[in-house]
Amino acid sequence: MTRTLSRKLIDDHLVSGHPQPGEEIALRIDQALLQDVLGSLVMLELEAMGVERVVTSPSVQYVDHALVQADGINAEAHLFLERACQRLGVIYSGPGNGISHPVHMEYFGRPGETLAGCDSHTTAAGALGMLAIGAGGIEIAQAMAGEPLYITMPEVMGVYLEGTLPDWVSARDVVLELLRRHGVAGAKNCILEYYGPGLAGLSAMDRHVMANMGTEMGATTSVFPSDEAVLAFLKARGREADFRALAADEGCQYDRHEHIDLSRLEPLIARPSSPDNVVPVSEAAGEPLYQAYIGSSGCPGYRDFAITADIVRGQMVAPGVSLDINPSSRQVLATLTREGYLGDLIQAGARLHQAGCNGCIGMGQAPAAGRNSLRTVPRNFPGRSGTREDSVFLCSAETAAASALAGVITDPRTLGRPAPRINEPDEMVVDPRMFVTPPETSATRPAMLATTHTPALPELAPLSARIEAPVLLRVGDNISTDDIMPAGNRVLPLWSDVPASAAFTFEAVDRGYAERAGASSSGHVIVAGHNYGQGSSRENAALVPRYLGLEVVIAKSFARIHWQNLVGFGVLPLTLSDDADHQRLMDSDRVIIESPGEQIEQGATVEASLSDGTTVTLEHQLSARQRDILKAGGVINHLRRKREEPQG
Amino acid sequence: MTRTLSRKLIDDHLVSGHPQPGEEIALRIDQALLQDVLGSLVMLELEAMGVERVVTSPSVQYVDHALVQADGINAEAHLFLERACQRLGVIYSGPGNGISHPVHMEYFGRPGETLAGCDSHTTAAGALGMLAIGAGGIEIAQAMAGEPLYITMPEVMGVYLEGTLPDWVSARDVVLELLRRHGVAGAKNCILEYYGPGLAGLSAMDRHVMANMGTEMGATTSVFPSDEAVLAFLKARGREADFRALAADEGCQYDRHEHIDLSRLEPLIARPSSPDNVVPVSEAAGEPLYQAYIGSSGCPGYRDFAITADIVRGQMVAPGVSLDINPSSRQVLATLTREGYLGDLIQAGARLHQAGCNGCIGMGQAPAAGRNSLRTVPRNFPGRSGTREDSVFLCSAETAAASALAGVITDPRTLGRPAPRINEPDEMVVDPRMFVTPPETSATRPAMLATTHTPALPELAPLSARIEAPVLLRVGDNISTDDIMPAGNRVLPLWSDVPASAAFTFEAVDRGYAERAGASSSGHVIVAGHNYGQGSSRENAALVPRYLGLEVVIAKSFARIHWQNLVGFGVLPLTLSDDADHQRLMDSDRVIIESPGEQIEQGATVEASLSDGTTVTLEHQLSARQRDILKAGGVINHLRRKREEPQG
Repeated sequence: MTRTLSRKLIDDHLVSGHPQPGEEIALRIDQALLQDVLGSLVMLELEAMGVERVVTSPSVQYVDHALVQADGINAEAHLFLERACQRLGVIYSGPGNGISHPVHMEYFGRPGETLAGCDSHTTAAGALGMLAIGAGGIEIAQAMAGEPLYITMPEVMGVYLEGTLPDWVSARDVVLELLRRHGVAGAKNCILEYYGPGLAGLSAMDRHVMANMGTEMGATTSVFPSDEAVLAFLKARGREADFRALAADEGCQYDRHEHIDLSRLEPLIARPSSPDNVVPVSEAAGEPLYQAYIGSSGCPGYRDFAITADIVRGQMVAPGVSLDINPSSRQVLATLTREGYLGDLIQAGARLHQAGCNGCIGMGQAPAAGRNSLRTVPRNFPGRSGTREDSVFLCSAETAAASALAGVITDPRTLGRPAPRINEPDEMVVDPRMFVTPPETSATRPAMLATTHTPALPELAPLSARIEAPVLLRVGDNISTDDIMPAGNRVLPLWSDVPASAAFTFEAVDRGYAERAGASSSGHVIVAGHNYGQGSSRENAALVPRYLGLEVVIAKSFARIHWQNLVGFGVLPLTLSDDADHQRLMDSDRVIIESPGEQIEQGATVEASLSDGTTVTLEHQLSARQRDILKAGGVINHLRRKREEPQG
Repeated sequence: MTRTLSRKLIDDHLVSGHPQPGEEIALRIDQALLQDVLGSLVMLELEAMGVERVVTSPSVQYVDHALVQADGINAEAHLFLERACQRLGVIYSGPGNGISHPVHMEYFGRPGETLAGCDSHTTAAGALGMLAIGAGGIEIAQAMAGEPLYITMPEVMGVYLEGTLPDWVSARDVVLELLRRHGVAGAKNCILEYYGPGLAGLSAMDRHVMANMGTEMGATTSVFPSDEAVLAFLKARGREADFRALAADEGCQYDRHEHIDLSRLEPLIARPSSPDNVVPVSEAAGEPLYQAYIGSSGCPGYRDFAITADIVRGQMVAPGVSLDINPSSRQVLATLTREGYLGDLIQAGARLHQAGCNGCIGMGQAPAAGRNSLRTVPRNFPGRSGTREDSVFLCSAETAAASALAGVITDPRTLGRPAPRINEPDEMVVDPRMFVTPPETSATRPAMLATTHTPALPELAPLSARIEAPVLLRVGDNISTDDIMPAGNRVLPLWSDVPASAAFTFEAVDRGYAERAGASSSGHVIVAGHNYGQGSSRENAALVPRYLGLEVVIAKSFARIHWQNLVGFGVLPLTLSDDADHQRLMDSDRVIIESPGEQIEQGATVEASLSDGTTVTLEHQLSARQRDILKAGGVINHLRRKREEPQG
């Protein structure tokens, strides 16, 4: 039987389940990737699970998000992570070494392996023929502890590429074209698998750009073959020994089909404030510009910075335009310096920032309100730049650089000069000395010291024998995890401190929630509408309300990752059997569920009583594994118990 | 009669007054320098005064402080300043172009001219034989409007230098030695004038370092001769036409005397948390290190970064140490790139930040609480780094770099290698294209638009006919303007918004102050110890308390600039005739001053009644001009009235 490359990678790592679209499957995870603002919780979870040393190899903790250090909290988090890495057997990549996704690809990515990461853009490693999946921190902690990663088997969309890209058109434009066609939910429960002759013209880092932004279409991940381009990439970094050729079988069947003739593409741009709001750059040309921003995991290649340098060389950015260069890694920065491109950028008036995610996640470089910012980042959701009333466009480095020179949005083809030709040097600067490797044995491991801002996780109780709890919050449809747990420079540094971040829970929705929850002597219930918990995968959106006493969420429907996170932290997620019952729930002061543990074992429904004496029938969609987790009070309790049992 | 160089510069610019130490003199100001976090207020003040076009030339607005852009406020401030510059005839140096002091020296500094700037380190231009004085924004606004700058004629301390610096000892160590000898108030009302054969070994940028940190001793300014070193400096920047030889007359008399044999100095370090807490580095050697920080106006030279690069070349910073490089200007960054030093720094693991003040004023790079940070910045006041419980040491680039390699505080002489020899290249990168020049005529000037975060200034009332006000705050000695109006990433972006920044006033000293002041229906009084208002020249440390109702500050003594700022915004600054009265003031609930305007006109003392019924005799040191300003309710009211009068 012929197989897609995605299916081969899944089969090679299948622990349990049937790989039919929609079925839950369990995958063995080879490598793990953590970033700093979510990594601290993962470390605390591993510690709470009783893990002495992680199993995934390599496991790498990157410090790339919280680099501004406006006060001491970021720096303390870095020191905590470095110590936790030593204790738990994780490689530490400190501040200044660069963004997790490109750095991981350059030093650790290996064709044919699986990678799980607590960041939605972990998928970028698919550029090397890996199966790379982003998930909530508690899922990653389990994988690092040696448990499988559970996912819903996706469909595979074969994306056939042919032709070669015209001058001034690059990988960003290819993935923007896909977003234009399919929208931000167009690849949900789907792997984007690229194939065809058009791949020959796309370097491994070009593919990284496309695999990164597959996430913006809701894809589970993106997969590219491991071919000559991957070999060249590994070779330039002295890693050809890690190469292994991988491709789909000739004639294999895809669940869905897509086709792009690269030669017919033109420079594209996503208007504010959604990545699928895509039009040709020519349609936006002439609009004024405050900022051009080059960098991020959405455009991390040496090539992208070198192209920018080539375009601005000898010229000066237009007055009033901020050209912000965010190098993706120390080695890209070092190579750009060696090859002379960095000098071109500086001379042209660029502002050069430290290597890291920076402005892509609102950590600096926020634009003026209402002023246009052209960015090579993956997302332009409203306010993500740090400015509430922002106006962010997504485009290629070519388009951003051309626009910075002109002072207005500019189709780079209209610059009236030949297109730059950038070849990645045969040898990139390779220097792994900023990775701090943990000791070989756990005999020498340091103590895991909780810090002021990284206290130990709260203990969570098992599922109650009887739930009788007030309804403390009633919300409508499409509540996002941003609504539940805000990010930004104010709250993000507190994410690894559950009690401290509790005060901000639901801040934008209902400022009184945290106080009411704290004052309640029992647990409590939240009643919600459709798509509860959409957006970012942040697990603290489940953990922190649980810490505040949340026992049950009753919603018309849940977003997938948040639903998993609720289960992971022992919160019972229930849906309505009949939407007509919703108003009765909204009107009820309290909810009583007798013997919830027994009810979820006995069937798919749960009976609850309301304060008016009536009852309502609710549903759960929990697998046997998830029922066990829920009854234990979450994954940590569950796994700790499992690890304490004698091995047999 | 022989004259000191300081006296010659003063005589050349004297408008009125007798240049006898202690007398108020008025100086004609040639050039003006603004930085961004105080510049917006100056622009608003010029507008409020009715100024159409500034008189000083050049007048340059630098954007170097608020570069992080955690939200849109910083970016909006930059755009406001750019527009205000066009309107008022000021050159705009945008974000990325570098720190005001070194950039001004490189492009605009001219021996023999006067420079006034709204930043306490404006004094650094004394390195070129200028008379460069930092003052509150309102003083600078007056100077830019064509009024003289009023100062108290200082004493001149002749600092005789002989010998040559030993290996591993540099300009930072010379000025730290002066701080060790004289302390943070040791050069109050004094110009430090350097002379002697030891100068031959100190480059213009070395002298900049010393003139910069003269401010930490309370000096009015520092003055160096304009000699071969200045000529070489100007020549390397294509500006030899601006050179003019200047020196003190042979045999001139100084008011005070100091003498340093450079050959006997060793590497020095200022321990937390005062610049005069100076010991030999060898005494601190071996203490652990979190951070080594190179840059700021206290160590801005090409040489300092190149030396750091030379020391770390081919090696790697110790694990857990953050080596933060803050380039001082775009042209230093470009020259370091051209000469290869930047690559050395990146390879050694440095975190490279955008050109600007950055962490020196708590805008990023804050250290972990209680962890040692070695910095080449001018000041280590508690919390200035952005971390409340910081532990900041001041030292040379040599000491910081050696310590970063070793992971502990290290005397660079113990590195066991020859000292680096760095020669500034004969040609620095020179590129003035980031300066935006204003239109030649005011006919084309744009409108001055107040923005959300840059509202028009509050109107201030004239001096009350009778003051009866509660004592709302009692503080000890050495309260700094940092204590009065915090900087840092949280508050600095709000500095041009008086109502918004009011909530943070005295935050570190007494969190209740702003609320009590807001709740008080009358004005209020502050009672303080010695050296009230030391440190940074920020005028909002006077304006914002005034906005909150401050009418009188009674202190044992005042720092000069803050004292002027209080007068400039109509706050009456009084000192004690007898320090023994201090406790009675501290114990008093309220202070009553009958007819304050008449009392200050009638003599040098002011009688006040306390709540226990006793009276106390206070003193003012106000000139006739200052009495007029004070009675008008500050400079703006005073000057507006003056400009409205028919010219005669």
